[in-house]
Amino acid sequence: MNVEVINTGTEILLGEITNTHLAFLAQQLFPLGLRVQRQVAVPDGDAIRDALSESFTRAEIVLATGGLGPTTDDLTREITAELLGLDLVYHPAVMQGIKERFSRRGIKVTDRVQRQAFVPKGAMILENPNGTAPGLYFNLEHAQKKSSSVTRHLFLLPGPPRELQPMFDDAVIPILKTILPAGAVPECRVYRVVGLGESNVEAMIGAKLLAIEGLELGYCARSGEVDLRVIGSKAVVASAGKVILKALKKYIVSADNQSLEQVVVQSLAARGETIAVAESCTGGFLANRITNVPGASRVFVEGFITYANKAKSRALKVAPRLIAANGAVSAEVAAEMAEGARAAAKVDYALSTTGIAGPGGGTEQKPVGTVFIALASKHMATVVNKHAFPTDRENFKWLVTQASLDMLRKRLA
Amino acid sequence: MNVEVINTGTEILLGEITNTHLAFLAQQLFPLGLRVQRQVAVPDGDAIRDALSESFTRAEIVLATGGLGPTTDDLTREITAELLGLDLVYHPAVMQGIKERFSRRGIKVTDRVQRQAFVPKGAMILENPNGTAPGLYFNLEHAQKKSSSVTRHLFLLPGPPRELQPMFDDAVIPILKTILPAGAVPECRVYRVVGLGESNVEAMIGAKLLAIEGLELGYCARSGEVDLRVIGSKAVVASAGKVILKALKKYIVSADNQSLEQVVVQSLAARGETIAVAESCTGGFLANRITNVPGASRVFVEGFITYANKAKSRALKVAPRLIAANGAVSAEVAAEMAEGARAAAKVDYALSTTGIAGPGGGTEQKPVGTVFIALASKHMATVVNKHAFPTDRENFKWLVTQASLDMLRKRLA
Repeated sequence: MNVEVINTGTEILLGEITNTHLAFLAQQLFPLGLRVQRQVAVPDGDAIRDALSESFTRAEIVLATGGLGPTTDDLTREITAELLGLDLVYHPAVMQGIKERFSRRGIKVTDRVQRQAFVPKGAMILENPNGTAPGLYFNLEHAQKKSSSVTRHLFLLPGPPRELQPMFDDAVIPILKTILPAGAVPECRVYRVVGLGESNVEAMIGAKLLAIEGLELGYCARSGEVDLRVIGSKAVVASAGKVILKALKKYIVSADNQSLEQVVVQSLAARGETIAVAESCTGGFLANRITNVPGASRVFVEGFITYANKAKSRALKVAPRLIAANGAVSAEVAAEMAEGARAAAKVDYALSTTGIAGPGGGTEQKPVGTVFIALASKHMATVVNKHAFPTDRENFKWLVTQASLDMLRKRLA
Repeated sequence: MNVEVINTGTEILLGEITNTHLAFLAQQLFPLGLRVQRQVAVPDGDAIRDALSESFTRAEIVLATGGLGPTTDDLTREITAELLGLDLVYHPAVMQGIKERFSRRGIKVTDRVQRQAFVPKGAMILENPNGTAPGLYFNLEHAQKKSSSVTRHLFLLPGPPRELQPMFDDAVIPILKTILPAGAVPECRVYRVVGLGESNVEAMIGAKLLAIEGLELGYCARSGEVDLRVIGSKAVVASAGKVILKALKKYIVSADNQSLEQVVVQSLAARGETIAVAESCTGGFLANRITNVPGASRVFVEGFITYANKAKSRALKVAPRLIAANGAVSAEVAAEMAEGARAAAKVDYALSTTGIAGPGGGTEQKPVGTVFIALASKHMATVVNKHAFPTDRENFKWLVTQASLDMLRKRLA
């Protein structure tokens, strides 16, 4: 069944808020085997009429958000009634609910609020425990409608996410389940790939995957990461998985959408081992990513953000002579930073970063983007990798932490 | 002029990523006096053709994102060429740029990548310093096109935000400025307000600003920050500025869109003073924000991410007895952390954070979200602030660093 989403609200088109409805709705619909085929955002007003009319010609299920409130620019309810040829009927029970809500909060009920108690005839009311505007469901399977309309199920939902989201889970999903054919839900798997570009990933496995009949394939390239999405029947997803694991095994961080930092923290926790970091060019971002993972305190002991050379020497015991001889951005200093952090924090592993984030500070021999990453471990000798990530400052930090975490991930694998 | 935005990408429709393009583009277009009238998201494939065709009948300016990459599901370039009746021409210079980019990173160039060097005839190439796919601009004012088309300016932009955003600022905005009628670009000023909620800001200045004729006013509430946007003639923006500064002075971080961390780094640099940070619950995020500012190394000396209690005692000389008596999350420990960091790093200021980020670790007396922030300074006694930010882990870190940086900003003001 085709699904379309219509988001109404001038504030969305002005960029005053980021529209998170599509991501939420799509994620909730996916396990039901439903995909959003198209999403449109229009400002409050007449554009809502056009958007609804167009979706009615294409989609069996239409989800519209916003425009159900009390103010003059909230028109979705009235426009829908008009398009479907339905009268608006006053519902005393809805008004009673609004009055009770207002009185609990000590707010005066204005005449405007009454509008929300008018409901297009025949619509089912979806309760809104987190706001005044109820949601509405229209079952149009047996309704009189224009011959061009294919829409059989229409939902009008409130605009604020904290009202829409619980209403969707509690009221909309149960309705959708009753209208879906049994056994319609496909499998989906997302492989996170680090250390290969999108075109390399496709060159290595694209042809083999395209040969699997019934497989839907998607690539999502982020900076320093490619997400590979395979969708189809259980058997098809399993066949694709074999191809992917065989060709890309060492580059695959997770097959269940987990991030690099989640995988690293879990691996360390499973081994009962600990980590510290010594950061120069990443300036705390590496520690930040690790400590974003709930429960990171079980494995993460300490971070040393030794931006100044004197801090490298004092906190990590990097010899000033070594810095003078090789420069702070060098394999030698990276190695001593990692070893110094491991000794000071008394941990099993320590990662260090030293590089030139830019925009200033580059030289002929060490241009902006040069970075050395070291991994010290109780199990074997310290390893140093050199990379070049010539990009902007924040993306440089991202790529350096990707490479650092992946270095440790491979060691733990 | 009508503007429409088309976002392509199956990952958007599947909810795998949140579509932030509309909010970004709308905010950048707003100061030019341009408003987005409609935004649509479609999956990779033929739906792109329909979306482009429809926008061509309605909008003078069309901005399409995504689908310019090297893989088989990247079709925007080809579909556009077909719709506009343009041949695809191979551009050796584009290919050269891609090859150089790949060789800098040590990645092999595959045949697939070549696709990105094919450009519809007559399109202007918009350089992409942050990725391989160039953007494209089509000036259709004098082009042969279907009679139903009203589109005069079409931009194809890359999907990843970190490629699109700089390209938009550096290449698209200058083009848009040349096609807008002279004098059409109003003045725009953005005040960043920290420490007040949106409704407080509106209550304090809303009525006074609404009384200024010809002023367009926008609020953009982010977590821990409200951006107040005033647009109009030079005189109108100046009058609004007086009202805003009088009412909100101590809450205004900047009147030129500078971030809190930029303001703090610049203030320190101007005074020739230095800073260190001691972080527990923010886990490196405070240092990360400071070191995101180019030139931060002039003022930022060292960060101590003392996640474990033993690290607090060893690196910052926090007495174990003090931790045992008050708990690691306490005003006493926050103060000793800041003072310990200031002494160890030999700096003028030190900020410290200790709190309960959650989801675990909360107690009756110190629930999740509790945090103590201390500021030690050479100028006066250490100050400790207590806050409650009960939210998710990453937003907690954001709010704590907002409060920390703002504490220092006020001290430096």
